[in-house]
Amino acid sequence: MAATGLKKGGIYRHFGSKEELAAEAFDYAWSTARAMREPDVNQTVDPIGWLRAHIDNLVSRRSVIAGGCPILNTAIEADDGNLVLRARVARALRTWIARVEHVIGQARKMGKVRASTDPEMVATIIVSTLEGALMISRLEKNADALLKAQDHLNRYLDTLTS
Amino acid sequence: MAATGLKKGGIYRHFGSKEELAAEAFDYAWSTARAMREPDVNQTVDPIGWLRAHIDNLVSRRSVIAGGCPILNTAIEADDGNLVLRARVARALRTWIARVEHVIGQARKMGKVRASTDPEMVATIIVSTLEGALMISRLEKNADALLKAQDHLNRYLDTLTS
Repeated sequence: MAATGLKKGGIYRHFGSKEELAAEAFDYAWSTARAMREPDVNQTVDPIGWLRAHIDNLVSRRSVIAGGCPILNTAIEADDGNLVLRARVARALRTWIARVEHVIGQARKMGKVRASTDPEMVATIIVSTLEGALMISRLEKNADALLKAQDHLNRYLDTLTS
Repeated sequence: MAATGLKKGGIYRHFGSKEELAAEAFDYAWSTARAMREPDVNQTVDPIGWLRAHIDNLVSRRSVIAGGCPILNTAIEADDGNLVLRARVARALRTWIARVEHVIGQARKMGKVRASTDPEMVATIIVSTLEGALMISRLEKNADALLKAQDHLNRYLDTLTS
């Protein structure tokens, strides 16, 4: 209401419904989070460097995004009620995993990771470990779990490249 | 209300407040989840077998617990409002990580993992990966991420023992 200068009724009229408003708010938070985590590394030249920078951005820039990871925040509350929101969160998560998977596929094509590497497996593990560590760090109010996750994932990437 | 036969006012009188009721509901869900995930393996004889069985219970018995992981469900909603609930969730998470850490410590004492193994690091990675995969599997409505997490963690345990 402060941002738009509209009254509550006016906001609902604009967005059609409370559900749609929540979905638009998610999209906005998600596009901000995604931009913050985009590495300043050319993924076609150095895909593994891109992955390490992406992980580092998630760990070190988390506090810049108000409220933390939009997927983590929205995944649970959207589960039971708001189907529009639920679909947006699931699509955002899938886009994120697919992006990481694509970069690992590039690394494999360039011979920068072993030919036996499974990009979907690696992408799922990177995203799972980071999201779980984000949850723990948030509950414990310190970066400890996230720093351990980063260390673990960097070693995991080492095992793929050697 | 169905379970106790009390009216809403009676339930609140019994628990003192809505916040306390939510905290008691969490404790109940948590003790059920914990019992379901307790491996049928003697941790003092085979600590690594205990860890693998614990991971397997989390992956394969998740649907038995109504609503899924109580920590994942409660971590986000408790973050802003209910301080009593927040403290219970944080304590439950810390107890879980400490339990896993203790079993890895036993494995190290028995020479079943390398002496350089850091039990707190390993416990944090196991719990992070499982919680993140639980979130993904719930959003995607399939066990895919959890099965990948289990495979990854079993290989991770292999690297500690070899």
